[in-house]
Amino acid sequence: MTLDPQAQRIVPDPVEPATRDVESLDVWGFEDTRFVARPDGVVVLEGSRYELSGQELADLLPWVQETIHPDIKPDNLNPPHYPPPIPEPRRNDPFLDEIRKSFESDQISEDPELRLRRGHGHTQDEMHAIKYGRIERVPDVVVSPRDDEQVERLVAAALRHDVVLVPYGGGTNVTEALRCRADEERTIVSVDLGRMNRILWIDPVNHMACIQAGAVGRHIVEGLARHGFTLGHEPDSIEFSTLGGWIATHASGMKKNRYGNIEDLVLDVRVVTATGVLERPAAQPRESVGSSDPRRWIFGSEGCLGIVTRAVVKIFPLPEAQVYDSVVFPDFESGVRFLYDLQRSGSVPASVRLVDNLQFQLSQMLKPRKAGVAKLMSTAQKLFVTRVRGFDVHKMTACTIVFEGTKAEVAAQQRQTRALARRYGGLASGAENGRRGYQLTFGIAYIRDWVMNHFLIAESFETSVPWSRVLDLCEGVKRRIHEEHAQRGLPGKPFVTCRVTQVYPTGACVYFYFAFFFQGIEGNPSQVYGEIEHAARDEVLAQGGSLSHHHGIGKIRQPFVDRIASPGVVAFARNVKAAVDPSNVFGAGNQLFGADDAQHDA
Amino acid sequence: MTLDPQAQRIVPDPVEPATRDVESLDVWGFEDTRFVARPDGVVVLEGSRYELSGQELADLLPWVQETIHPDIKPDNLNPPHYPPPIPEPRRNDPFLDEIRKSFESDQISEDPELRLRRGHGHTQDEMHAIKYGRIERVPDVVVSPRDDEQVERLVAAALRHDVVLVPYGGGTNVTEALRCRADEERTIVSVDLGRMNRILWIDPVNHMACIQAGAVGRHIVEGLARHGFTLGHEPDSIEFSTLGGWIATHASGMKKNRYGNIEDLVLDVRVVTATGVLERPAAQPRESVGSSDPRRWIFGSEGCLGIVTRAVVKIFPLPEAQVYDSVVFPDFESGVRFLYDLQRSGSVPASVRLVDNLQFQLSQMLKPRKAGVAKLMSTAQKLFVTRVRGFDVHKMTACTIVFEGTKAEVAAQQRQTRALARRYGGLASGAENGRRGYQLTFGIAYIRDWVMNHFLIAESFETSVPWSRVLDLCEGVKRRIHEEHAQRGLPGKPFVTCRVTQVYPTGACVYFYFAFFFQGIEGNPSQVYGEIEHAARDEVLAQGGSLSHHHGIGKIRQPFVDRIASPGVVAFARNVKAAVDPSNVFGAGNQLFGADDAQHDA
Repeated sequence: MTLDPQAQRIVPDPVEPATRDVESLDVWGFEDTRFVARPDGVVVLEGSRYELSGQELADLLPWVQETIHPDIKPDNLNPPHYPPPIPEPRRNDPFLDEIRKSFESDQISEDPELRLRRGHGHTQDEMHAIKYGRIERVPDVVVSPRDDEQVERLVAAALRHDVVLVPYGGGTNVTEALRCRADEERTIVSVDLGRMNRILWIDPVNHMACIQAGAVGRHIVEGLARHGFTLGHEPDSIEFSTLGGWIATHASGMKKNRYGNIEDLVLDVRVVTATGVLERPAAQPRESVGSSDPRRWIFGSEGCLGIVTRAVVKIFPLPEAQVYDSVVFPDFESGVRFLYDLQRSGSVPASVRLVDNLQFQLSQMLKPRKAGVAKLMSTAQKLFVTRVRGFDVHKMTACTIVFEGTKAEVAAQQRQTRALARRYGGLASGAENGRRGYQLTFGIAYIRDWVMNHFLIAESFETSVPWSRVLDLCEGVKRRIHEEHAQRGLPGKPFVTCRVTQVYPTGACVYFYFAFFFQGIEGNPSQVYGEIEHAARDEVLAQGGSLSHHHGIGKIRQPFVDRIASPGVVAFARNVKAAVDPSNVFGAGNQLFGADDAQHDA
Repeated sequence: MTLDPQAQRIVPDPVEPATRDVESLDVWGFEDTRFVARPDGVVVLEGSRYELSGQELADLLPWVQETIHPDIKPDNLNPPHYPPPIPEPRRNDPFLDEIRKSFESDQISEDPELRLRRGHGHTQDEMHAIKYGRIERVPDVVVSPRDDEQVERLVAAALRHDVVLVPYGGGTNVTEALRCRADEERTIVSVDLGRMNRILWIDPVNHMACIQAGAVGRHIVEGLARHGFTLGHEPDSIEFSTLGGWIATHASGMKKNRYGNIEDLVLDVRVVTATGVLERPAAQPRESVGSSDPRRWIFGSEGCLGIVTRAVVKIFPLPEAQVYDSVVFPDFESGVRFLYDLQRSGSVPASVRLVDNLQFQLSQMLKPRKAGVAKLMSTAQKLFVTRVRGFDVHKMTACTIVFEGTKAEVAAQQRQTRALARRYGGLASGAENGRRGYQLTFGIAYIRDWVMNHFLIAESFETSVPWSRVLDLCEGVKRRIHEEHAQRGLPGKPFVTCRVTQVYPTGACVYFYFAFFFQGIEGNPSQVYGEIEHAARDEVLAQGGSLSHHHGIGKIRQPFVDRIASPGVVAFARNVKAAVDPSNVFGAGNQLFGADDAQHDA
């Protein structure tokens, strides 16, 4: 590699979305992919998109029945009724008249299902509502600008006509960030950034790229890879979420150990606000310019301060080597201690994730039943782990690892990591299990909507916490959910599982899944879920965890803001908002910018 | 190392400042250390504090005479007249009456020299003014709170009585951040944080420490080292600057490649603002909580939004190994190309700094003349470099390197780095030169005040810039200064030198020194200097550089803010300031928060 000041910026061709890449409106993901339980009890992920696709999962349902409730059966169905009734749009005709002058007619839509989709993310409550209930308030019109200038026109028109703008990226949030406030009487405009999806330039010498905010993760990956680069930002939602969404959410990527989180990757942003356009002439390696750097206002602003239209990001040459690995540990604590020392070693693989025993079991059930020699080998391996090494299948845990770098780096890191794992009783379980665990993330995202059809309601939540609190927090949250479940006399057993998904010098990110069987219970199951999750969140904070590691606050965690921020912080942030957006044109109402103080009593 | 949740936080004993550590009021640094030119032309750094101290520098003055002007001589003196006339304090008696109720009398001072010292930093203009001119406006009273509660009382009193608060840390800024605005008619209170200098706790398991904002770098180093830790933040000013100052300035440290810059190190801040106290119950490894995290408002706020009282920071075990190294290159371009590839290699030493030829020459002149065998060896070495390897002494450059980490890491990194250096014609020049180059930073800081006694005015400025612009920028700025110097018919030759002090994936930090001989020139030399530096700054921006990499904007760079920020950015930031500090109690007037828009025309 040489420093060539004459090298030109590359202006890449657009990545055309594959024609098969149609997204579902009613459930997570692509239309061609859904879990189904066949009458014989075998579960299959339909389609051919993922490694898991088409495999016959015979063990899954029996295990779910044993672990949660025996009535979870192929023929015990809770049929969804999508689409729900969708409210009529509240029109602001002077606003519409104005924007029609500068937007094509296909850029402005009042289609009910489009409006509904832009009025929710993927919380269980929202997904339950669109299939089994209704959403009272959704955006009144969807506008899809094609460039920065149109975004500016839109904001100017919104300010003039007092309408609300809510930016829309991939719609993958799990914080109710897109949920419209029921008390909002103004016209709500969903600003769909889907057409602003280009990589505008790649600077191959200085390793930067300028990308429009509406670009979707998988297209960014493809567009940069064509020129030998990667952004390295891989949130679990990478297939659907967007650069603008990552910035507005303050997102974290699975490979942050090598590439950094979003705040480490973004060098500059362009933002259209009610106070004007925030932009700067150049992206610099690092600066000390205080309030002149608009990034500080925008990371994690959750749509409430302006619309990000583009960003300059760091890019990295594609790694020479990418190696998956996995290790099983006798129990969760051994795994956490391993992660702690791994972080301390200073040589941390691109990604390390430790699943607890329940999640380890689940991952085993998401494998097709083996036959012949494969079955023998698999059985032999299991016998070795349990008989010879004395692992308890109801305690053991697994860690999936991704190494990226030069071949030499990867080899050295793998040696070190395995040696360290052995110190904590870890047993190498191979690249294949590592790769599978990593890829499973994408397939597993489809499970939640499927199980809802079988009276199971499920969701994830996450936190970050200092190392010394990790074990207590995991245990405390599980215990609390079991107690809450028992107190309510809910059927079967609650399903609570966690994994450590990120490591930092001072602590880790812990990611929970919680589900329960709700057939026949009193009250709205989604509301019951919300109450228990609220209790779990209370426990997270009581155990010293953060309100969010990477999902954000949105509306779902607003009641807890007072627990993590002094009255001064709350007042400061609200004064800022009132000063830069006095008419609340960016009225998404997330975080500290909800309707009133009453919302903020925990 | 083990994860021990039972491990207690350590509450360390305070670090008592050494009795000899008295700081000068009229010049940089400790009172026991000053450069003097003996009548025989030999230069000596008085005292015994630094490696350079007491060494007889016989080559320096002849070289300065040849390089800049022959009239720079021991007996050609420009005697300083410190202290200058100091304006009487403007008292606000109701305010003083109120704070006297909760502060001891020794916490409130109207001593003229104390007030003067708290009204300036170390720009050439300020240092010239206190020795050869005057400063029209200085703080009216110095108040030294001893704890957070007193800071809160002080802010409350200031709000009630409409006085201005200007936080004071080490007074080492080079941006006029402490300069009082001449048009400020209210009482200006310097809030000296010097008594809030404790490490409050060390968390040895989670590798965090809570430190008061007034703690000075060298005491933080000592206090943490007693318990086996380091913060790893080492700005050139580490002997005098404070944690609060680093946060307010958005500082960078020499070893940021290993430990990060200040924004990477600070996990939480406590800030007293006009809107209330910004604080949170816990410091987390990483969060997505948007405006609930007060750090975003405070990094680089330059005293204009509130007073930082304490911060939670990451700490690191003291490295097992610390190894210095150095390499000489045939020219500057080879060195820059080496740094570029070193950054690309992904294995970057804790610190790498490349000095240009002039600075390399200066460093050679800051060595005592050798005698006997040492002289022979030194001469032989030089002959090898110049004769055998064909290096031109008027082109060659040097890179100093610090490796930190485990012994194995350091050894591997050193091997890799040396191999890479050889590819660019680099020649290893040893650990001793590396260590010397690194330590020289501290001694060299005393030069500026000394040369002012000999009609030389000097200062540094810095920028960050993408890799592909580094060479053009360095050359362009030097050319521009030479042109400006020539146009004004100034005597002798201007002294302009630069070094690359930091590397990043997308670019580097470039640090310039500029000096000229001003005896007999027309006009105020400091003003002439300011004009030329202004032109140099214009050139930096024209060449694609940032307004500041780590010094900040203060008042000295306010005229350029419009060049790096859109009107929207300026309006946004000013609206924020007006909203959270409506009476401008934090009226330091830095950055975007100066008097009026007129200041912001470049």
